Amino acid sequence: MCQLLGLNANVPTDICFSLTGFRARGGQTDIHKDGWGIAFFEGRGVRQFLDHESSATSQIAELVQNYPIKSTNIVAHIRRATSGTNKLENTHPFMREMWSQYWIFAHNGHLENFVPFDKSITKNGERPTRYNPVGNTDSELSFCWILEDLHRDLSPQSENFETELFAKLRELCIAATAHGEFNFLLSQGTWMFAHCSTQLCYIIRKAPFSIAKLVDRDLSLDFSGVTGNDDKVAVIATAPLTNNETWINVPPGTMLMFKDGELAQEAKTLPGKKNPKFKTS
Amino acid sequence: MCQLLGLNANVPTDICFSLTGFRARGGQTDIHKDGWGIAFFEGRGVRQFLDHESSATSQIAELVQNYPIKSTNIVAHIRRATSGTNKLENTHPFMREMWSQYWIFAHNGHLENFVPFDKSITKNGERPTRYNPVGNTDSELSFCWILEDLHRDLSPQSENFETELFAKLRELCIAATAHGEFNFLLSQGTWMFAHCSTQLCYIIRKAPFSIAKLVDRDLSLDFSGVTGNDDKVAVIATAPLTNNETWINVPPGTMLMFKDGELAQEAKTLPGKKNPKFKTS
Repeated sequence: MCQLLGLNANVPTDICFSLTGFRARGGQTDIHKDGWGIAFFEGRGVRQFLDHESSATSQIAELVQNYPIKSTNIVAHIRRATSGTNKLENTHPFMREMWSQYWIFAHNGHLENFVPFDKSITKNGERPTRYNPVGNTDSELSFCWILEDLHRDLSPQSENFETELFAKLRELCIAATAHGEFNFLLSQGTWMFAHCSTQLCYIIRKAPFSIAKLVDRDLSLDFSGVTGNDDKVAVIATAPLTNNETWINVPPGTMLMFKDGELAQEAKTLPGKKNPKFKTS
Repeated sequence: MCQLLGLNANVPTDICFSLTGFRARGGQTDIHKDGWGIAFFEGRGVRQFLDHESSATSQIAELVQNYPIKSTNIVAHIRRATSGTNKLENTHPFMREMWSQYWIFAHNGHLENFVPFDKSITKNGERPTRYNPVGNTDSELSFCWILEDLHRDLSPQSENFETELFAKLRELCIAATAHGEFNFLLSQGTWMFAHCSTQLCYIIRKAPFSIAKLVDRDLSLDFSGVTGNDDKVAVIATAPLTNNETWINVPPGTMLMFKDGELAQEAKTLPGKKNPKFKTS
């Protein structure tokens, strides 16, 4: 299994404090030591750091922790290999271009018998699909399958694109969850989609800011000294990173969409729940 | 304008020495200070570092220079912006997936009136193309255009794929060169394609190895102490990185393909030269 960490904010924000606790779980306070990765959106670009070493000891993780890259959307992942070997091509987050935007995806869980593309429709031995995995994980395969479906069925020119995108992703979550655990973070630089299949929590920090204490390190930070009054920062993680704040546990079978540091949409993704009422803000 | 640095080797090799000289040209010994980037193939995966700061002062460049990542194919680029703003999404090298492999591209030059995709064929305001730029440089556009053409016209299942790929890339080089300077490095982890439109040179280091002295820093390295007898390492650069070795100047209008640290194919790409004789090893 793995752990996820995401950030969605209304102002470019660094993740140094959260990452300090999170990376300890990659081999020090927890067992997720088979590689780690992080992706920061900066404008339309993405800065991605991938490493097959454990995040607790990686020199690159040390640099990233101490190098305040400010971003409104960040996705990080520490890996304990369950599917696919411990190789760089299997390291999350994964990145692809769709609709002239980069999309970033990280997954926690394991899908069984997940064969989303019909192999019989290959053309000259090649996949006819637009998005294809490079490594051999169920995670990258599920990411490609999500993009394939979104690209085929949606148009970003649509007036209701945001709603349609959320609804389509919800459908895909329901379909994938039939194959196993499917907790993920997905972003294209504006929205952060978070699916809780078994375990995920989040916190939204905004004024009045206070002091936060990490679970995994003996470290505190007074956010009131490093934030503006209008800042809103959502932090999403597999398990709470601080022990003196109230994290919201996401019920299993829930998809969330964060935008500008706030929860913008939420829907159930339990199989068999038809016609869900979307909560839209 | 920009500068390119590439490595193709028959054994995983680090680029620390060459990068020490190269990164000085990004703001210290030369003017290419509008960002830099480097991509290392590791197995099927790619480790990419992008930074819009100058390579001479970037903390990330400092880390990468001192962190021996071993790879058989590396592409690096330092940028002086001529097209597109100094933003992360315009920072080379660019990466896309094609045929379940990552492809990496960096460009030195500038293309004028380069409109390779017919805008009239957009569908619902969207490009119908498979590969689309995220930033606004001629370089990323030319990369997408190359991939689009390769994907449409070639099949990696073909028996003569390597020859067909080289021939197709040569055609594309001839077409693009009509629009301006088109020096580039392109790799998918096995081959390193290098096109010299105006300026490019290379060196192949193999036994007996000797001492190399950097042009841009007061630093020497005795390669005989860090290599095996069978190692072959091709280093390709816009301008020689050492001043006591013989670099081969590539004639303008030439495409090269390196494989396992050796020059495997070479062909002229001057417009109007029909039916070139490919030199194949």
